[in-house]
Amino acid sequence: MPDGSARRTGIALTERQRIAWLRLIRSDNVGPATFRDLINHCGSAENALAMLPELSARGGATRAIRIAGVQEAERELEAADRFGARFVGIGEPDYPPALRQIEGAPPLLAMKGELSAATRPSVGVVGSRNASISGAKFAAMIARDCGRAGYTVTSGLARGIDTSAHRASLETGTIAVLAGGLDQPYPPENVPLLDEITEGAGLAVSEMPFGWEPRARDFPRRNRLISGISLGLVVVEAAERSGSLITARMATDFGRLVFAVPGSPLDPRCHGTNGLLKQGAIVTTGSADVIEALAPLSQLDLFNGPVVEEPKKFSDILPPNDDDRAIIVSALGPTPVEVDDIIRHTGLPASTVYLILLELDLAGRLHRHVGGLVSIAMDA
Amino acid sequence: MPDGSARRTGIALTERQRIAWLRLIRSDNVGPATFRDLINHCGSAENALAMLPELSARGGATRAIRIAGVQEAERELEAADRFGARFVGIGEPDYPPALRQIEGAPPLLAMKGELSAATRPSVGVVGSRNASISGAKFAAMIARDCGRAGYTVTSGLARGIDTSAHRASLETGTIAVLAGGLDQPYPPENVPLLDEITEGAGLAVSEMPFGWEPRARDFPRRNRLISGISLGLVVVEAAERSGSLITARMATDFGRLVFAVPGSPLDPRCHGTNGLLKQGAIVTTGSADVIEALAPLSQLDLFNGPVVEEPKKFSDILPPNDDDRAIIVSALGPTPVEVDDIIRHTGLPASTVYLILLELDLAGRLHRHVGGLVSIAMDA
Repeated sequence: MPDGSARRTGIALTERQRIAWLRLIRSDNVGPATFRDLINHCGSAENALAMLPELSARGGATRAIRIAGVQEAERELEAADRFGARFVGIGEPDYPPALRQIEGAPPLLAMKGELSAATRPSVGVVGSRNASISGAKFAAMIARDCGRAGYTVTSGLARGIDTSAHRASLETGTIAVLAGGLDQPYPPENVPLLDEITEGAGLAVSEMPFGWEPRARDFPRRNRLISGISLGLVVVEAAERSGSLITARMATDFGRLVFAVPGSPLDPRCHGTNGLLKQGAIVTTGSADVIEALAPLSQLDLFNGPVVEEPKKFSDILPPNDDDRAIIVSALGPTPVEVDDIIRHTGLPASTVYLILLELDLAGRLHRHVGGLVSIAMDA
Repeated sequence: MPDGSARRTGIALTERQRIAWLRLIRSDNVGPATFRDLINHCGSAENALAMLPELSARGGATRAIRIAGVQEAERELEAADRFGARFVGIGEPDYPPALRQIEGAPPLLAMKGELSAATRPSVGVVGSRNASISGAKFAAMIARDCGRAGYTVTSGLARGIDTSAHRASLETGTIAVLAGGLDQPYPPENVPLLDEITEGAGLAVSEMPFGWEPRARDFPRRNRLISGISLGLVVVEAAERSGSLITARMATDFGRLVFAVPGSPLDPRCHGTNGLLKQGAIVTTGSADVIEALAPLSQLDLFNGPVVEEPKKFSDILPPNDDDRAIIVSALGPTPVEVDDIIRHTGLPASTVYLILLELDLAGRLHRHVGGLVSIAMDA
C-alpha cells in the first residue's frame, strides 16, 4: 500500500526563471536532452538563451536559430493561467517523481487539475482503442482496485481501454497525458471525460505548447510520458504493432514493470499482449497481480526522499577550437554511437566533446537516439 | 523435425515371461514400483510370484496375499488377442520410449492399433471437456501441425479438447490413453472415434486390465501416462482444479515441457491455463511455439539409441531379521520420507532396508508417494 502523502520537495522556479525555461524549450533544436546539456553548460536557462546564437553558429548552423521570445512565452503562460493550468519544472515539488528519472524527461510539464495526483505512485493502464467488452471491464477493474490501493491511474485519454481506465479511477485520481497542448484534447468525444478528470481528483498533463494540435508522430512522445510517470504499465488487449506496445517497450527501457493480460490467440486484440507475455511481461489475471508486484516499488525513496536539482554554475571551459570540432565531425557518421566512444576514439577532453556535440545539436546537425547515442546528419 | 524412423530396440519377453509379468502386476499390493523392486530382488517375475507369499508374510500381512493365477492371466491375454490388442513390456521395442523413463512406468501396456505410433516422439494435447469453439479449433490446429511435423498426438479421449486433438491427428497418428481397460472406452460417444484411431495410424493404450470399468480415481493414472508418453504437454483451456492441471503437474514432475494457451481472465475455462503461465509454462499462441521448443528434445538418444533392460540376477541377500524390521517400522510414520533418510537414520544396509520395505509393501502396510517417498499405514 503506497503512502499517498509523499513529501513534495525540490526547487521552486522564480517567474523569471519559468519564462526563461519555457523560452528555451520552445526554441528550435532544443529538446529535453539539449535543454539539460545547455543548463549544465551555461548554468541557467537565461544564460543559455543568450549563448544560443553563438553555440549554434559554432556548430555550423547555416541560418540563425529561432529563439522563442519573451512575449511568446508570456502569452503561453497567460493562456495556461486562463485555462486554469500551470507549468511545473522538472526540479519542482509537483513534478511526477518517477518521470524525473527517465532519459529525456520534459523540463516543463503543463498540468491542470489536482496537482497532488502527480506526486503519488502511479500505474499506467493502456490498450486497444477498439477494446472488447471484457477488455474494457478488465481495465476498469484494474484501475478501480489500483486506485483504492493508493495509486493514481495514468493513461492516454484514447477510446477503449484508456477511457475505461480513466473512468474507473475518477474518484481516486487519474492522470490523462495528452499528445497535443492541454487545450487540444483528442479524441473530441472524450472532452467531457477530461473535464471530469480535471475538475475532480485527477490531472491533465502535456509537454506540448498550448494550441498544439496533436499529429500522429506526437503520440509516441505521449506514450513515453505515460510510461515515465508510471511505476508499472498494465497492457489490456493490444494488437500487434500498436501504440500500446510502443508504450510497453518504453516502460521496459525505463525499468518499469510491464504487466500483460492474457487473451485468446485467435483474437487479434490479444496478439500484442500475448507477445509481451512471451517477452517476459507479468501474467496478469487480476488486480492483485499488479498491486503485489508494485508494492515494493511504491515505497522507494523516489516518493519519500528529497529530490532537489540545483542549477549548476556557468561552465568555465573555453570555446573549442575548429580542429577539435573537425575531428569530432569526421568521427561521427549516420550510425548512432555512444558519447563515451567518441571521447575514447578522439582522445579529446570529455567537456570539449560534450560542448561540441551541443553546438552541433543546436545547429541542427546532430541526431539524438535512445540511450544517449548520437549520430550526425549526413546532409550537413 | 523428429526422425520418425526411430530404432526400435530392447528385450523381447517370451510368452512364459509375459504371462508371469501379467500375473505379477495383476496381483494384490503390486504396483509399478513394487513390480520393479520385485524383479530387482528376485531376478524375474516368475521368481517373484513364488516368493510373494513369504515376503508378504514377513512384512506382517494378516491374510494371504491374492496372487493372479496362470488361468486368469491367460484369459486376459486371450481377451486381448481376440480384441486385436497386445501387451508390451517396459523393456520391449514397442514400449513408448519416453514413458520408460518415468517413475512408476507401467511394466505392461495393453496396446491396440498401429504400434509404430508408440515409439515416435509425441506431444500431449489436453484441456477442458466443455471447450469453447475457439479452444477446440486451437487444439485441432496444434494437433494437425504437430502431426505434420512428425509427432504423434497423445490425449485422453475425453470430450472437448481431447476429441479435437485426436480428430485432427487421425491421419498422422494419435495415441488415446484410456482410464479403464482397452475394451471399456469412455465416454461412450467417443467409441467411434476410438475405432477410427485404432483402425488408422493411431493407437489405444491402457495399463488397466481388460474389462476394467474406469472409476474417477483411475483418471489421474491415465493422465500420468499421457504426460509420460509425451515430450511436451500442451494445455488448451483448463479450469482451476481440473484434470488437465493434474496432467500438467505430472508433466512438470517428469521434466516435460508444459505449454499453456493464454485466454481471457474473465473466462473460467482459462483460469487453469493462465495459472500455468504464471508458474512458468511456455506461452503458446501457435503451433510454432510447440514445435520449436520440442525440436531439440525429439533428437534425444531416447528415440535413437538402444534401450535394453536385462533382467537382474536373483538377489543373494538373506531375509532380514525381525529386529531390523522392527527398527524400520518404528522409524516410519504417516509422514512420507525418503528411503535414503531411512538408511541414514537406521544405519542398516541399503539392501536390507529395500527388502524390508518391499515386504511391508506386499503386506499392504506401506504407502508409496511421488518422488519415491514412503510412509507406513498407521492402522497396521
